[in-house]
Amino acid sequence: MSTTVPVAIIMGSQSDWPTMKHAALTLDELGIGYEALIVSAHRTPERMVEFAKTARENGFRTIIAGAGGAAHLPGMTASLTPLPVFGVPIRSRALSGQDSLLSIVQMPAGIPVGTLAIGEAGATNAALLAAAVLALSDDELAARLDQWRQARSDAVANRPEDES
Amino acid sequence: MSTTVPVAIIMGSQSDWPTMKHAALTLDELGIGYEALIVSAHRTPERMVEFAKTARENGFRTIIAGAGGAAHLPGMTASLTPLPVFGVPIRSRALSGQDSLLSIVQMPAGIPVGTLAIGEAGATNAALLAAAVLALSDDELAARLDQWRQARSDAVANRPEDES
Amino acid sequence: MSTTVPVAIIMGSQSDWPTMKHAALTLDELGIGYEALIVSAHRTPERMVEFAKTARENGFRTIIAGAGGAAHLPGMTASLTPLPVFGVPIRSRALSGQDSLLSIVQMPAGIPVGTLAIGEAGATNAALLAAAVLALSDDELAARLDQWRQARSDAVANRPEDES
Amino acid sequence: MSTTVPVAIIMGSQSDWPTMKHAALTLDELGIGYEALIVSAHRTPERMVEFAKTARENGFRTIIAGAGGAAHLPGMTASLTPLPVFGVPIRSRALSGQDSLLSIVQMPAGIPVGTLAIGEAGATNAALLAAAVLALSDDELAARLDQWRQARSDAVANRPEDES
Amino acid sequence: MSTTVPVAIIMGSQSDWPTMKHAALTLDELGIGYEALIVSAHRTPERMVEFAKTARENGFRTIIAGAGGAAHLPGMTASLTPLPVFGVPIRSRALSGQDSLLSIVQMPAGIPVGTLAIGEAGATNAALLAAAVLALSDDELAARLDQWRQARSDAVANRPEDES
Amino acid sequence: MSTTVPVAIIMGSQSDWPTMKHAALTLDELGIGYEALIVSAHRTPERMVEFAKTARENGFRTIIAGAGGAAHLPGMTASLTPLPVFGVPIRSRALSGQDSLLSIVQMPAGIPVGTLAIGEAGATNAALLAAAVLALSDDELAARLDQWRQARSDAVANRPEDES
Amino acid sequence: MSTTVPVAIIMGSQSDWPTMKHAALTLDELGIGYEALIVSAHRTPERMVEFAKTARENGFRTIIAGAGGAAHLPGMTASLTPLPVFGVPIRSRALSGQDSLLSIVQMPAGIPVGTLAIGEAGATNAALLAAAVLALSDDELAARLDQWRQARSDAVANRPEDES
Amino acid sequence: MSTTVPVAIIMGSQSDWPTMKHAALTLDELGIGYEALIVSAHRTPERMVEFAKTARENGFRTIIAGAGGAAHLPGMTASLTPLPVFGVPIRSRALSGQDSLLSIVQMPAGIPVGTLAIGEAGATNAALLAAAVLALSDDELAARLDQWRQARSDAVANRPEDES
Repeated sequence: MSTTVPVAIIMGSQSDWPTMKHAALTLDELGIGYEALIVSAHRTPERMVEFAKTARENGFRTIIAGAGGAAHLPGMTASLTPLPVFGVPIRSRALSGQDSLLSIVQMPAGIPVGTLAIGEAGATNAALLAAAVLALSDDELAARLDQWRQARSDAVANRPEDES
Repeated sequence: MSTTVPVAIIMGSQSDWPTMKHAALTLDELGIGYEALIVSAHRTPERMVEFAKTARENGFRTIIAGAGGAAHLPGMTASLTPLPVFGVPIRSRALSGQDSLLSIVQMPAGIPVGTLAIGEAGATNAALLAAAVLALSDDELAARLDQWRQARSDAVANRPEDES
Repeated sequence: MSTTVPVAIIMGSQSDWPTMKHAALTLDELGIGYEALIVSAHRTPERMVEFAKTARENGFRTIIAGAGGAAHLPGMTASLTPLPVFGVPIRSRALSGQDSLLSIVQMPAGIPVGTLAIGEAGATNAALLAAAVLALSDDELAARLDQWRQARSDAVANRPEDES
Repeated sequence: MSTTVPVAIIMGSQSDWPTMKHAALTLDELGIGYEALIVSAHRTPERMVEFAKTARENGFRTIIAGAGGAAHLPGMTASLTPLPVFGVPIRSRALSGQDSLLSIVQMPAGIPVGTLAIGEAGATNAALLAAAVLALSDDELAARLDQWRQARSDAVANRPEDES
Repeated sequence: MSTTVPVAIIMGSQSDWPTMKHAALTLDELGIGYEALIVSAHRTPERMVEFAKTARENGFRTIIAGAGGAAHLPGMTASLTPLPVFGVPIRSRALSGQDSLLSIVQMPAGIPVGTLAIGEAGATNAALLAAAVLALSDDELAARLDQWRQARSDAVANRPEDES
Repeated sequence: MSTTVPVAIIMGSQSDWPTMKHAALTLDELGIGYEALIVSAHRTPERMVEFAKTARENGFRTIIAGAGGAAHLPGMTASLTPLPVFGVPIRSRALSGQDSLLSIVQMPAGIPVGTLAIGEAGATNAALLAAAVLALSDDELAARLDQWRQARSDAVANRPEDES
Repeated sequence: MSTTVPVAIIMGSQSDWPTMKHAALTLDELGIGYEALIVSAHRTPERMVEFAKTARENGFRTIIAGAGGAAHLPGMTASLTPLPVFGVPIRSRALSGQDSLLSIVQMPAGIPVGTLAIGEAGATNAALLAAAVLALSDDELAARLDQWRQARSDAVANRPEDES
Repeated sequence: MSTTVPVAIIMGSQSDWPTMKHAALTLDELGIGYEALIVSAHRTPERMVEFAKTARENGFRTIIAGAGGAAHLPGMTASLTPLPVFGVPIRSRALSGQDSLLSIVQMPAGIPVGTLAIGEAGATNAALLAAAVLALSDDELAARLDQWRQARSDAVANRPEDES
């Protein structure tokens, strides 16, 4: 899995993709390369260990990890790599992602996961946070990110309108 | 770590022991052998993988796992061993173990963790559940467990008393 | 109700069956016999007492109990039998199963219920946990369970795909 | 346990008495007779069944039941007697009685438990609610209850005072 | 509003009726007379005060009060009448009735509201609890209530069935 | 209770005063007159009705109401007066004021209560919000409030310091 | 943005308008002028600062601010203006507005936001609270508000009706 | 405030320092320079705007922001700078930091805050996450961070010990 792309987007199952693809779309908009992979902490723990332990040497620079319910993928990945890991809580059926959020954010001292909002907004923001990190050593990306942010600001209308 | 004791009590850190020793004390009362080990999902992930993958061949028959906060140890262990895993949510400082409980119990289909109550009651009950499992193929233990339960029933007073 | 099947799946009402049948389906896949029974703690308390008190002598080895709301069936059953009891919180209408979860998992020291996730995933996992227990003294079942787990791992794709 | 007192105060363990004695004290103030009994749904389920099934014929007219955690005593008692049952959630260590409250109040259609507030206020109010029920057919008690309520109103000061 | 019916069913608005009519239907089944009234604590506070202060002299013997959100009707009614008041939390749009439940059940010492489950089950159970109270001094009603309960028990099937 | 002070601070009991006096202290600092009164929605409902119905004619211009648990005082007051009512949730013993907060803030459309934070900060802020309202037609008060706010800003240090 | 209307209704995005227009409709009913503006704390922070700092000199007298999720707009506006600010928590997708409510109401001592209920009821009530504030110095508005309230009371039916 | 240190640690008040100094201590251990500043979103909003808008040009590369209650500092800072912002929820008095957590993590799409655990563990982990980000372009720091992590792993004992 040697790579020249800086971001890995990992998730526990195919069912997380409708959420996590918002991270991919945002990286696309910013011109940042990524790999999207299914790596299940629970069903494929050894694939997860292998992925996380080799992520740095394989060229990744940040990891975006989405998971739902008892969401262990972001934290376990963070325990196995020194790279920055950003976690996205997937909205769960019974508890709407409150379980996912607490399972990701309440990490013990020593192993950080930078956690974003539950659901699609969190996936988009994980990509933006990865971009902010990469932009620290990439002036062109920094400029593109500034433009992206400015465009979002400029798009805010002055007054609400009734729609029908 | 080859063993002839049937139960492993694992926990993420020394600070979990005041809770988890209630599992040990209960196993002592029932005459069931155990190993108590510190195995941190986050600080020693590879020790955890090694422990869990070899638990069955090393002779363990059930695993009791305590963890707090973003509690990943029970679920990750369950993903790496076919043995029954019983999880004990440790009471956390900010959220009183609600985070621990959800991180342990809300496992996805495929990887079960039998979860007990938050804190000391849960640790005691994890030992009793392990005993109930082992008693299925150990008539002497079954008799001891029946006696233990009967003694607890007999100890219930008829009327409350003011204490001072 | 003398039986030669090792697992009882009990639930409080017909309306729990769409959830609990996922336990039955999983036991079917693993070739484990079971009885599915409606035993209401609240509407048929004496049937529940009779069932639980005779479960061991009737040949059951583990009990899977699903219940919703103020879910008393798993805990009351556990108070009346020495067999391992695994509880499944049914998703409730107003509180999404948070009430069911707490009513099942927060048992006092002395009477354990191994609690699984809210809803269908929990029902599936209760069956898998029962299988793990039974596999401790049944090498053929242990092999089938290993295969089932391996097949689940093997089925995890490497990359997410857009579906439409 | 044949009785001529109209109220039974039952609780799961001695540790519930510091809360439940507020029900007893209130009944004392109102001149209503009661029995205070320890009846554990989990440790003495058969004592509970026996108590509840015979409560009406033994002369009780209302039952006050206190329980904590996975609090099954009020609901199970209500399933075994046609008498009005009033439930008091005991404040639990980890979850402050939120588990007790939901386990008592979220009963399914068919088996009512009139639930009061968590803790001492709830115990006091269970006694007052029992008194209101008994007062429906006891004019002297109705008068005493009116006086008790009036005295509480009269005791409300007009202005707060700093205390030191 | 002088009356010869023993139960008042009050609610804050027309929108509570789809829930509260389950109380009415249950009272119908048990042959208990009732008045169903809209009495809003917030929009018609003086009508509420008038209703509650005269409820006893008008012949009511128990009051069932349903309310949602910041649900003040049950508690305010209980502060203005010595009659037993049973509260039904209506399921609210944003918080699913968690706000309604806490606003009804967490009454201070001195003013009890016997609180039932959120939603339709709670409405049904409020009627059953009122019936249990009235049955204490009405042997015919006691017999009808026993029959109602027995019929519910008898209707519980032995085994779940797939439905389609 | 005819008055020339513009603010009434009302609360359900003496035990709310340690919280509510922070409103009084803040009004003192701003030179705004107030009356502090105990008005219990539950123990003195008619005193509450009388107070609220006459508050405007008695010269009050805003009302600050603190209450805990099933906190009905702010909402009931708001239903009986057209004056602006600001509610302060008192921290409760079991639920830390979550019950108080929801009982105050979740008012139905038609009867507003401007709700502040749980506890002392909320009491202080209720006073500041009352001041902001009064300052709309009192330029001297507006100037004092501006100064108060500026002083608070100026008091913010640039760097944290270790204290011992 | 110099204005002669007394109320500003601000919100973070177009998607908040279906909720916030209930504030606008209520102000219309009461004959109170307003401006409805999109001012995003996060996407247009400098527009927000500019708006809030000049709101008083631009003639506004109260501000209604709606926001969802990590809802910063009401609190940040309140930190930048001495005018009364009333906050409306928008119902969020994952957490139903519980996040919005806490982000708005739990302001630290010094910067008050008068918070209303989650969703449409809160938007309506923010308008009514603004009206109550403006009515303190506008007798005609006070009369219209009294009429509006009376009409709402008069519209409450006496009995619920089945609708179909 | 021009600087050559890469990390700013900002917080809303002096009272946050006992938590946030754990970030400072961790950066000290890793040999990373930082400035610790009090920047209140609510009491000094313009200082916050000035700080955030100039943070990048002043040489900062990442920002750690701690805040409690309605915690707006991390999100507002993130809206005003393209630098990565990591948020630490401070444990609040009434709600134990649940309000702080939701106010920080539930940011809308477009403005990311990488959120850490509530309290001291979160402060430590914010520093570690900042270190991981800086290590991407600083091989010596990467080596020190690897050593720090390895030392933490090596310090995990094999067995729990009773302490007294």
